[in-house]
Amino acid sequence: MAILTVDMRHGRTDDQKREFAAAILDAVSEATGEPREQVFLIINENRGINFIEFGQHLPEYVDHASR
Amino acid sequence: MAILTVDMRHGRTDDQKREFAAAILDAVSEATGEPREQVFLIINENRGINFIEFGQHLPEYVDHASR
Amino acid sequence: MAILTVDMRHGRTDDQKREFAAAILDAVSEATGEPREQVFLIINENRGINFIEFGQHLPEYVDHASR
Amino acid sequence: MAILTVDMRHGRTDDQKREFAAAILDAVSEATGEPREQVFLIINENRGINFIEFGQHLPEYVDHASR
Amino acid sequence: MAILTVDMRHGRTDDQKREFAAAILDAVSEATGEPREQVFLIINENRGINFIEFGQHLPEYVDHASR
Amino acid sequence: MAILTVDMRHGRTDDQKREFAAAILDAVSEATGEPREQVFLIINENRGINFIEFGQHLPEYVDHASR
Repeated sequence: MAILTVDMRHGRTDDQKREFAAAILDAVSEATGEPREQVFLIINENRGINFIEFGQHLPEYVDHASR
Repeated sequence: MAILTVDMRHGRTDDQKREFAAAILDAVSEATGEPREQVFLIINENRGINFIEFGQHLPEYVDHASR
Repeated sequence: MAILTVDMRHGRTDDQKREFAAAILDAVSEATGEPREQVFLIINENRGINFIEFGQHLPEYVDHASR
Repeated sequence: MAILTVDMRHGRTDDQKREFAAAILDAVSEATGEPREQVFLIINENRGINFIEFGQHLPEYVDHASR
Repeated sequence: MAILTVDMRHGRTDDQKREFAAAILDAVSEATGEPREQVFLIINENRGINFIEFGQHLPEYVDHASR
Repeated sequence: MAILTVDMRHGRTDDQKREFAAAILDAVSEATGEPREQVFLIINENRGINFIEFGQHLPEYVDHASR
């Protein structure tokens, strides 16, 4: 069992989360041989300002184009 | 000092959180000999869709019966 | 499914970890109604000095008495 | 690169988060020699009741005085 | 920037970690549009017994066949 | 109470960890008004290869100059 946590800004649509999760489950399953159903993922969300990267607080996530 | 983090879906009532936390503090205290006050717990909440288990996104948590 | 992580110092015996885990699984299962098998726990270990509590680095864990 | 995560109650103002983050980036940069831009910080927020410390659920954070 | 953490048992070879990481970076990059270099991953390792899944402590990881 | 976790490579000396922790405790205490003793820090260590940043696995940490 692989348990992954990803820290991301609020704002992705449910569809974007589904697409994101599917890509990770496939990738981890293929790389480790674990069945997809044995790959757990937690998407941990916070506001943009809660992420400080390269010395900068991130802006809130804006979905520029629907997927 | 034991510091525990639990990842859960939004939606539990405050009473359910109190009951949950009390059970964990008691269990950890009894199993480790640490006084209850030295067991810290963080309940980290996200929406249901942010949890992918057994290949599925979880539905939002619904409190079927009051505690 | 509840996924818990506990941060602890290296040094507990395997038996102590079993006792600790069993107590948590029982407590969470009882408090949430989730079956024991649906409560996942990760014991994340580091050296004592890696824990700074109350302004102090912890000593390495020493098992004073067998359980 | 140092990646820090801090668990805090909802309720700090954006300015308080900026001040907090700046202080941590400076401190980590100075103590490790890493440039400030290479120190990443995630502020992970939850409600007060989600924090159990010293056997008590915390109240919601209230900003007693503006900074 | 996406920051992922995966909790896994000790025991994968460095090559397995490279293959695993490459698969995740590609998947996340493709699903989110972020450049691969902006996807950070931390592989957090502990002994098998530190993972309790489905009510069982995991055995230590054994690499059945080289990749 | 602020609970911070920092993910770092194995290899810092105990003195470096003390200096690092002291800087963070001071910074957080000053920025939040919390007493130093109420700032908890966990230094979570893994091997260099377990950190993938900017598309690269990090080398093992080498202490270029004693602090």
